[in-house]
Amino acid sequence: MKLKYLGERKAIELIADITKTDISDDCAVIKFDRKFLLATTDAVNETTHIPHGATPYQIGWYAVAVNLSDIAAKGGIPIGIVVAISMHKNTDSKFLMQLTAGMNDCAKKYNTKILGGDTKESDSLHLCGTAFGIVGRNELMLRKGAAPEDIVCVTGTLGKASAGLYLNKLGNVLMVKPRIAEGQILARTHAVTSCMDISDGLASSLYQLSALNNVGFEIYHSMIPVANAAKKQRNLLQDELVLYSGGDYELLLTVKKSKLGLALKYMKKTTTKLTPIGKVTRSKEIFLIKKNKKIPLENRGYEHFKSFSPL
Amino acid sequence: MKLKYLGERKAIELIADITKTDISDDCAVIKFDRKFLLATTDAVNETTHIPHGATPYQIGWYAVAVNLSDIAAKGGIPIGIVVAISMHKNTDSKFLMQLTAGMNDCAKKYNTKILGGDTKESDSLHLCGTAFGIVGRNELMLRKGAAPEDIVCVTGTLGKASAGLYLNKLGNVLMVKPRIAEGQILARTHAVTSCMDISDGLASSLYQLSALNNVGFEIYHSMIPVANAAKKQRNLLQDELVLYSGGDYELLLTVKKSKLGLALKYMKKTTTKLTPIGKVTRSKEIFLIKKNKKIPLENRGYEHFKSFSPL
Repeated sequence: MKLKYLGERKAIELIADITKTDISDDCAVIKFDRKFLLATTDAVNETTHIPHGATPYQIGWYAVAVNLSDIAAKGGIPIGIVVAISMHKNTDSKFLMQLTAGMNDCAKKYNTKILGGDTKESDSLHLCGTAFGIVGRNELMLRKGAAPEDIVCVTGTLGKASAGLYLNKLGNVLMVKPRIAEGQILARTHAVTSCMDISDGLASSLYQLSALNNVGFEIYHSMIPVANAAKKQRNLLQDELVLYSGGDYELLLTVKKSKLGLALKYMKKTTTKLTPIGKVTRSKEIFLIKKNKKIPLENRGYEHFKSFSPL
Repeated sequence: MKLKYLGERKAIELIADITKTDISDDCAVIKFDRKFLLATTDAVNETTHIPHGATPYQIGWYAVAVNLSDIAAKGGIPIGIVVAISMHKNTDSKFLMQLTAGMNDCAKKYNTKILGGDTKESDSLHLCGTAFGIVGRNELMLRKGAAPEDIVCVTGTLGKASAGLYLNKLGNVLMVKPRIAEGQILARTHAVTSCMDISDGLASSLYQLSALNNVGFEIYHSMIPVANAAKKQRNLLQDELVLYSGGDYELLLTVKKSKLGLALKYMKKTTTKLTPIGKVTRSKEIFLIKKNKKIPLENRGYEHFKSFSPL
């Protein structure tokens, strides 16, 4: 069967079946003395990921940021990143320098470093970052662990990236802010029962957590923190941007009800808001509570091979 | 300036200038408790790396093997690998399964594991592997360290991959055997002063070691162990395959003269031969001693952006 019919998530299952890899998380977690070593890899391909008009600096930043985001979701401290850059031989060295500056500035901004990489010739631009991180044994946040009655929270606001794509403000799409400090602070509260970064949209992420944890969710529409750029759009489009579009890289987490206060208090140390948006339920369905109506949340978002949007 | 004029090595220097990355080795080396964590990344792109007719199994094996080879050259024990796979949406799931089987079999063969990865949509096939390894603080082999009078050695034979490409025997090209056990054994001798894997050809690798260590080499043509497939070719072509073509992934190392015997003895534990082929010199030139004539070795080999051969 062709991948465009199979979709990304089934393709991943097919790979994991052969390699016997635990695919419940986006990071490999390796026991290492008294800590965990985290390793995560993310490819960025020109033809499918990079909107027309993006600057090389933005592309470089993005490639590093999306990798750091996976470290953030685990509560990890980044210790370095390697980037393999494949480019067409007609690429100008100025382009490469600006791309590298974007990669480097993003790594520095989050107190880490480009440790090495690879440069190869290719038909078009492909960046593949691999980030490493460290996390204490008691502070690792996984996607697995959500239990009924836990509170669902998100960091920051949603819809910024997709509104940016809609409005052709590519800075909003590509200058991703991985929630590194926030992830570490949340991990230290020991309040978080599950955590992931929202790369493919809120709905899609909730469905992933639901499948992994055998739980459902009730999400209060009015509580979802909407990014300013998305607020300006009419209702239907706003929902599309906030619920079903990806690229925000905010953290989606579940928190023990009794420790929600602690998590909210700790997060005040940052400039990023933590917002409760709903709760975990025993039933495996996912509902959106909108104007007192309980409507099923659709199971869709960005999926490679199947989707048509550029992000 | 376009990369096709700049070439791969200058492009790497340009990146390292911005990121302040030590590019003397192909592995990032991170201090980690009393050991070193090794991390290395290598991209394999369909249009520039993969000869026509290659099976998906061979491609998968190759992508993992070339990464493990960088761990081998450091004397490291592999602890895992992540692979980002970018594919066209019309790729058949059977192709993906065979590709994965090749990746997985190579990892297993060298006692390691696929720990995770990424799947993305792309215009053509791009694999990006990142391998991790561990090595004791006293056993790390670097590219830097060669000193005059050290003996130059290679593992195995040279010219196998390029003869395979010439004869269209793609198994010889793609079913690379990373010298994992050999690297660990050599590291334990503490006899090795510098080491790298020969990915772009013997001449090219010697020039890289020369620049890094401010030394030169005298290589005895008759001592170079030539692969059977290359032996069958006429002299000029044989030299081309053995000296100036890449893909063998054998280890090139320099050994303290007084410890050469020890290194040869230790290597007898493996089925791979270690062959002395010359010596390190104070003068920075690289000579080939051929039929008692001292001729300069040409500084060429496979280089991305500049070269035309598919490997």
